[in-house]
Amino acid sequence: MKNFAFIFLLLPVVVSAQDINDSLFIHSIATNILSSDASYNNLHYLTKNIGGRLSGSSQMYKAEQWGAQALKDAGADNVMLQECMVPHWVRGGKDQAFITYKNTNGKEQKYWLNVLALGNSNGSGASGVSAPLIRVNNFDDLEAKKDDLKGRIVFYNVPFDDTLINTFAAYSKNVIYRGIGASRAAKYGAIGMMMRSMTNSPGNYPHTGSLRYTDSLKKIPAAAMGLDDVKKLDSLFDNNIAVTASLFTYGKMLPDTIAHNIIGELKGTEHPEQIITVGGHLDSWDPAEGANDDGTGVVQTIEVLRVLKALGYQPKHTIQFVLFANEENGTRGAKKYAEEALHNNQPHIFALESDAGGFTPRGFSFDMDSASQEKINSWKHFFTPYYGDRFENGEGGADIGYLKEATHTPQAGLSPDTQRYFYIHHAATDVFENVDIREMKLGAINMAALIYLVDQYGLAQ
Amino acid sequence: MKNFAFIFLLLPVVVSAQDINDSLFIHSIATNILSSDASYNNLHYLTKNIGGRLSGSSQMYKAEQWGAQALKDAGADNVMLQECMVPHWVRGGKDQAFITYKNTNGKEQKYWLNVLALGNSNGSGASGVSAPLIRVNNFDDLEAKKDDLKGRIVFYNVPFDDTLINTFAAYSKNVIYRGIGASRAAKYGAIGMMMRSMTNSPGNYPHTGSLRYTDSLKKIPAAAMGLDDVKKLDSLFDNNIAVTASLFTYGKMLPDTIAHNIIGELKGTEHPEQIITVGGHLDSWDPAEGANDDGTGVVQTIEVLRVLKALGYQPKHTIQFVLFANEENGTRGAKKYAEEALHNNQPHIFALESDAGGFTPRGFSFDMDSASQEKINSWKHFFTPYYGDRFENGEGGADIGYLKEATHTPQAGLSPDTQRYFYIHHAATDVFENVDIREMKLGAINMAALIYLVDQYGLAQ
Repeated sequence: MKNFAFIFLLLPVVVSAQDINDSLFIHSIATNILSSDASYNNLHYLTKNIGGRLSGSSQMYKAEQWGAQALKDAGADNVMLQECMVPHWVRGGKDQAFITYKNTNGKEQKYWLNVLALGNSNGSGASGVSAPLIRVNNFDDLEAKKDDLKGRIVFYNVPFDDTLINTFAAYSKNVIYRGIGASRAAKYGAIGMMMRSMTNSPGNYPHTGSLRYTDSLKKIPAAAMGLDDVKKLDSLFDNNIAVTASLFTYGKMLPDTIAHNIIGELKGTEHPEQIITVGGHLDSWDPAEGANDDGTGVVQTIEVLRVLKALGYQPKHTIQFVLFANEENGTRGAKKYAEEALHNNQPHIFALESDAGGFTPRGFSFDMDSASQEKINSWKHFFTPYYGDRFENGEGGADIGYLKEATHTPQAGLSPDTQRYFYIHHAATDVFENVDIREMKLGAINMAALIYLVDQYGLAQ
Repeated sequence: MKNFAFIFLLLPVVVSAQDINDSLFIHSIATNILSSDASYNNLHYLTKNIGGRLSGSSQMYKAEQWGAQALKDAGADNVMLQECMVPHWVRGGKDQAFITYKNTNGKEQKYWLNVLALGNSNGSGASGVSAPLIRVNNFDDLEAKKDDLKGRIVFYNVPFDDTLINTFAAYSKNVIYRGIGASRAAKYGAIGMMMRSMTNSPGNYPHTGSLRYTDSLKKIPAAAMGLDDVKKLDSLFDNNIAVTASLFTYGKMLPDTIAHNIIGELKGTEHPEQIITVGGHLDSWDPAEGANDDGTGVVQTIEVLRVLKALGYQPKHTIQFVLFANEENGTRGAKKYAEEALHNNQPHIFALESDAGGFTPRGFSFDMDSASQEKINSWKHFFTPYYGDRFENGEGGADIGYLKEATHTPQAGLSPDTQRYFYIHHAATDVFENVDIREMKLGAINMAALIYLVDQYGLAQ
């Protein structure tokens, strides 16, 4: 490895006395967070003692109770539970699928696939659906084959584009297939849908996530599979071998149920009526522990509260630390939070979300007017020592996005490195062991620094 | 997770036609590398089929043969083996250690430690060394206890400073204990040295690395231990329990032996006499596979060659792709390469090294005159899309450092994210599985872009 002498950044920085005070305060944030076990313990409890916590599940209720207590323990002046109604989808059983085909000797072969039903999908029930499998490469290909789809199962094989540097770009390109692929196939009479998971991960983990049925069309069962199974299927299709698939899923949408946004507050000393929001979402998909999606965002949110309180910081504005309900299959918590802000005429001056994993931070994506952006850009040098100074334009996050619509709140999202996110996203691998605690802490440091600076200096008026 | 629309960086960029051409060429570098299996296959072969490859070991010779072939396969115009003499230290056996102490009932307890002898250290032999263990927290503490060290084994317990954001800073603070801690203890009559590994990794992996004995002092055996064992020792010392340690190591320095820098060349079309160097080191410590230290640097070096050749690029200057011998315990390959450059009066106009792990890139550290630096800074926007635009002042690397002394060559080192490097550095965990291939490729993309730009435009004259 290379030697390390003293590294400093090649940046011209104009330094004022206030700059130095701010730098020192942010340094004390960093030292406190890196020296504390709180975020480790919180993430460990949330993932190992509670685990996956889909809206309406018993774990969701446990997570709510835990979250309220964790916010109190971190030093919230008060903790509020904001009620909202959430969808209640249940997986209902163990998803299974197999294919049959004839080998070169004409002998029938059976091969089990590792599948996960898509969230919100209707199950096939124990009798399953069984039909010839048709591979399609994209929606154009689906249209070209539309006359052959009646009574068949459609297999969407849309690869993750590995040449896109930001993996979220690859995800965004393909997420439409998970969202509406089933209904698009049902339109032409398909009786089931299977898809290549939206991942570039090695191995054979299926990645779930929500679909949206078109109400006027048949709600056919739909499931994702891992990449080893895709390879197997490709080897058959590439050799023009006829494949029949059988899919057994048990998903069911129960009546909406009650959930809560869990909101911890630090009361503002100068402008208590003006609110700064920082949050992540408490719910997660069920195949694993929701560690990176979005356990780390929840834990970082609590950590920002903890460190500000631990350092005796008294905010000028009221800071709300929000553990949002139901991001994954409805964003009902987010909608409720924004509705209440609008209804109560509360000025929400800034919102920050962490919902892109607990990986080593790069910076933030910002969504705000140019004057506010310029002000934030002038703070860039405060983030450089903590690797959080890559400032991009983009969305803040799925939860705080509704605040933008409701109250025009300027917003930001933490941007961790994206390279490994889709290895674990919505899959059985999204577990505590796949979070690096130090990287998660670095993200929390940058979040706390941003909240501190916005609280101190506001954005453009 | 957050939605992803279209993200663009908040950077003012002046765009020229040449800028666009360069951007497109660098984009083609990225697409080629991300679409190719070459770097995966190279790293897999080097780590799994060859493994650890300390100077003088049979694996080192296998690695040399493999490296020469890999450079040819990647498209080198010619491959040269540059001979040098290297130290030949052998571990000689399985390092072992245990402690004994009395429990609260006065009953003797025996507890095995997981240790690795430090590189270049002399073994105790099968009879071992056995003596009361004295804990010291730093060299000041050693001095304070100097009268108690005769006939004892010294245990350096210097923790890794987790509050330093760049983990190389924490490493650099402590590396002196591994380097000269044994001789400092021997000066006061200690008969053995054990140390807390320089790591912040959970678990109990000892991390080796080279020491340097003072010739006039007794060359006492020396070994590192993992952090779980440190905790055990601390719990005893903190309770004032007397501890006796027994250490068994077998290290031996054999006569110097022959090794080679492996050098692949792309001949320059305009200034063939002017050389650009890019490299990593081929040797590695023995407890694992030398995957991140420095398998990834070697593979990235070969990848830069492969991609330039694959894209039909004809360099203006001669580019030498160097797999350096013996970085870990002598840097003899580096010295030889610099000597030859000086001796043959070869202008080495730029050198780039990758030896800080295969993690997701941040940028580069640069060591050059300010006019050259300014020129490189003007290229920053080319690196932004590939996450390599954090430009810092610092060292280029241990191997190319000698070129600076010999021929005043401006230099750069790839700077990957450092957060996880010291989990695996010189330990049993530095294996293929702990490299993320995509992250390693991103590093290679940034390296290739920098080599391309320097070749096209040179540095300041």
